[in-house]
Amino acid sequence: MKRHEIKSDIAWATPTQIKVHGLDLCSEIVGVVDFGQMAFLEIFARLPSANEARMFNAMMVILVEHGITPSSLATRMTYCGAPEAVQASVAAGLLGLGSVFVGSLDNAAKMLQDALPDPQASVDLKEVAANIVSAYRGRHEIIPGIGHPFHKPIDPRTPALFKVAQETGFRGRYVELMENIGAEASKQYGRPLPVNVTGAMAAIASEFKLPWKMCRGLAVAARAVGLVGHIIEEMRQPMAEEIYYRIEHEATEHSRPRE
Amino acid sequence: MKRHEIKSDIAWATPTQIKVHGLDLCSEIVGVVDFGQMAFLEIFARLPSANEARMFNAMMVILVEHGITPSSLATRMTYCGAPEAVQASVAAGLLGLGSVFVGSLDNAAKMLQDALPDPQASVDLKEVAANIVSAYRGRHEIIPGIGHPFHKPIDPRTPALFKVAQETGFRGRYVELMENIGAEASKQYGRPLPVNVTGAMAAIASEFKLPWKMCRGLAVAARAVGLVGHIIEEMRQPMAEEIYYRIEHEATEHSRPRE
Amino acid sequence: MKRHEIKSDIAWATPTQIKVHGLDLCSEIVGVVDFGQMAFLEIFARLPSANEARMFNAMMVILVEHGITPSSLATRMTYCGAPEAVQASVAAGLLGLGSVFVGSLDNAAKMLQDALPDPQASVDLKEVAANIVSAYRGRHEIIPGIGHPFHKPIDPRTPALFKVAQETGFRGRYVELMENIGAEASKQYGRPLPVNVTGAMAAIASEFKLPWKMCRGLAVAARAVGLVGHIIEEMRQPMAEEIYYRIEHEATEHSRPRE
Amino acid sequence: MKRHEIKSDIAWATPTQIKVHGLDLCSEIVGVVDFGQMAFLEIFARLPSANEARMFNAMMVILVEHGITPSSLATRMTYCGAPEAVQASVAAGLLGLGSVFVGSLDNAAKMLQDALPDPQASVDLKEVAANIVSAYRGRHEIIPGIGHPFHKPIDPRTPALFKVAQETGFRGRYVELMENIGAEASKQYGRPLPVNVTGAMAAIASEFKLPWKMCRGLAVAARAVGLVGHIIEEMRQPMAEEIYYRIEHEATEHSRPRE
Repeated sequence: MKRHEIKSDIAWATPTQIKVHGLDLCSEIVGVVDFGQMAFLEIFARLPSANEARMFNAMMVILVEHGITPSSLATRMTYCGAPEAVQASVAAGLLGLGSVFVGSLDNAAKMLQDALPDPQASVDLKEVAANIVSAYRGRHEIIPGIGHPFHKPIDPRTPALFKVAQETGFRGRYVELMENIGAEASKQYGRPLPVNVTGAMAAIASEFKLPWKMCRGLAVAARAVGLVGHIIEEMRQPMAEEIYYRIEHEATEHSRPRE
Repeated sequence: MKRHEIKSDIAWATPTQIKVHGLDLCSEIVGVVDFGQMAFLEIFARLPSANEARMFNAMMVILVEHGITPSSLATRMTYCGAPEAVQASVAAGLLGLGSVFVGSLDNAAKMLQDALPDPQASVDLKEVAANIVSAYRGRHEIIPGIGHPFHKPIDPRTPALFKVAQETGFRGRYVELMENIGAEASKQYGRPLPVNVTGAMAAIASEFKLPWKMCRGLAVAARAVGLVGHIIEEMRQPMAEEIYYRIEHEATEHSRPRE
Repeated sequence: MKRHEIKSDIAWATPTQIKVHGLDLCSEIVGVVDFGQMAFLEIFARLPSANEARMFNAMMVILVEHGITPSSLATRMTYCGAPEAVQASVAAGLLGLGSVFVGSLDNAAKMLQDALPDPQASVDLKEVAANIVSAYRGRHEIIPGIGHPFHKPIDPRTPALFKVAQETGFRGRYVELMENIGAEASKQYGRPLPVNVTGAMAAIASEFKLPWKMCRGLAVAARAVGLVGHIIEEMRQPMAEEIYYRIEHEATEHSRPRE
Repeated sequence: MKRHEIKSDIAWATPTQIKVHGLDLCSEIVGVVDFGQMAFLEIFARLPSANEARMFNAMMVILVEHGITPSSLATRMTYCGAPEAVQASVAAGLLGLGSVFVGSLDNAAKMLQDALPDPQASVDLKEVAANIVSAYRGRHEIIPGIGHPFHKPIDPRTPALFKVAQETGFRGRYVELMENIGAEASKQYGRPLPVNVTGAMAAIASEFKLPWKMCRGLAVAARAVGLVGHIIEEMRQPMAEEIYYRIEHEATEHSRPRE
């Protein structure tokens, strides 16, 4: 059987030394690098500049906590059955971060990166945006990254992110393209469809040159932190068992004989 | 059926506002709070002081990346079968953070917190340590948080963490107790058994008054970040398929007929 | 580095043949062996006798479906976010099969197997049972496998299982011991504490000489089948989104400003 | 807030009775129904006929065990870190049953069901097959369900399954269409591309009128059983730790300083 190489460049250790992405863990990371820089290091294999760190942190913190969601409920349900396996509760909550809630981030980033493979290319972004919107309309597909069913008239997270982008030099062509898509869609559909948080994140991730397939990874890592917060609350102030009792009762009432 | 209250104090949203642990997401978190502070906020429901942030970040970054481990291999194996579901790959890697690799962190924290419920109590820590070591020896149980099979003579992460603890005011009674346990165990067992990274982390988590049951949560959240790093490497420089071919071949060679 | 052997005896394949536990998949399994026998083959590495198959199937079918539970709710919550990844929904539901709901099966089997390592040993089971009950009482621990908060006065699944055990020759010493434990506990605690389904399953698994550590595996495999049933219902008649909306609304009502 | 109905028709219980899909668990299922019939009941909400049971069991047993795979390796890696949480090890192995290994089953079933929404329709299956093959070729997409990189010249599981289909009355129009697709693809591509096990399973699942979106569920449930078999072997004859040591050593050798 032919053997292929197995190689990892992330980390190595000897009895006296540990290196992660080329940095000495004990002297160059612990006490020096913060958790946000460390996440950046894991994703980009280098430390961020001050502006990169500020922009990256802004993205990460927005992904951490979304309150009571199907994801945090799955975590709480799992904790209620396996409190000794906290890792399983976090994992259960992450598993629902699929096409419905987080997939639109990948989709929006793919849309931007497919349309603008080279952000320096001299193209008319208004025209590119018009073509994208027309194509989605033609296929009767929802355009990712614009409009929001709950946060109206605008998603307040978008200006917050774009403000940081402005201040850190990340307000580039992908942000511009995303805004043009929102404007063009609003025009073509005849109702306000401003850029939502997903569109804003996708644009900034693209400014970071993060391939769209990796965007979901950011969301998953950040949400793991938030799910630990839900486990801590569930430990002190549980809701899972009460939800289960209520739902079991209601869902089977129609068939259960009167007791 | 009697109904009990269902209540969460983590976050809420209206169409125009989102609050997380009492802070306005758009004006008080995004662009202001970094990912490490955000993780602290999720766990302690308040923002950290500068010293708390530095100490907490030091703990978190040490947990992020451990190179090729059973956990990162589970992530890579899963990615190889379901590359479209990055969340599932991260989850698979988290699932092995159980009693063998991360459980000793809980155990060490429990040992410290059980022995010293009130860190201000005026007790002789040398005596407390001697009692702990004798009790574990009597039960033929391994004392968590001391010695290391690979990192010898000392685990280099321990002095790195304790240095930050010194500088930030976290070198308190739990750290002292942990060091006494290492010294006492070395004496009773007649071989060097210094505090390892797990013991150091457990001591510092106890200084933070983090109940021992929540320690594993820190590890799980941090490792999720590291597992994303492994997925990114697996995307570009895969090893899972090669491992699978080799192992399948070797494991079944003894029974397979010659081809 | 010293290499140790890597060996699996479960299955192997050549381009023209596949063997599983020594049986030819295409001529000796497909069309010949049913799903229950196949599960037995996976666990015991041999096919069951007719009596073994009937008893084993009775255990498996009892574990498949428990209606709306925290586990099936975790599956439904996950499906709602990641409908494209059915494997993740099943996995999420399995993750809560921990100490609270399934752990008592392991515990009951451990209790029986520790007390009666050799089922042929000539010991007085009444006395063994009395010692077990006294020991648990002394430690203020709950005795696994007896009593039920909902199924009263008896758990109807116990006589159903024990009837099959009687008919198939599986009503042996472990079943007898378990019944003695129920009787002795009822006496010592002064209230009815009959053997519940967990105790009955643990006793029969012990009659199969299944080590207690493997009991949870049976439950997990069987429940995976049931969770697929919940996904199919959730596809056609969803409840996850409605639960999420209701709970999110109720849980945050106390802090959210009036809209 | 408007409330929608929450309703489940799978199971209900009173203190003295448990019903699953309309059958009394204790008198109509335990001791009467086997694990294969129970799986059928969960998926189709009714018990199978003898022919249905035989065909369904043939499909399920083929999905249970695939030897050492990325999926079973993920299970073993997870067990090595969390042996106390067997449910997490099974879940980890299921998580990789995504687009690469199991997705082709969904895709093949979708291809068949889209092309033949009404299996009774009087259409020329040869022509339908020719159109399908041309369409996939035109889009440069791989046709699911035909050819196999390892099982050559034919996948031996296909004739085994189709033989049972013949004997049980399941050799219908979807099987015929699948065979036509294999024949037509072999002709158009000029090399043997016979129906593989995935194509055979997809055809038979379609004969069962199982919507293509539910096919993956069958595979996931069956594989859960097989993964328990791998955990049992890993308990007695471990390989995970050895794999981890070897791979860690090899993967980091290029960067680690000589010791």
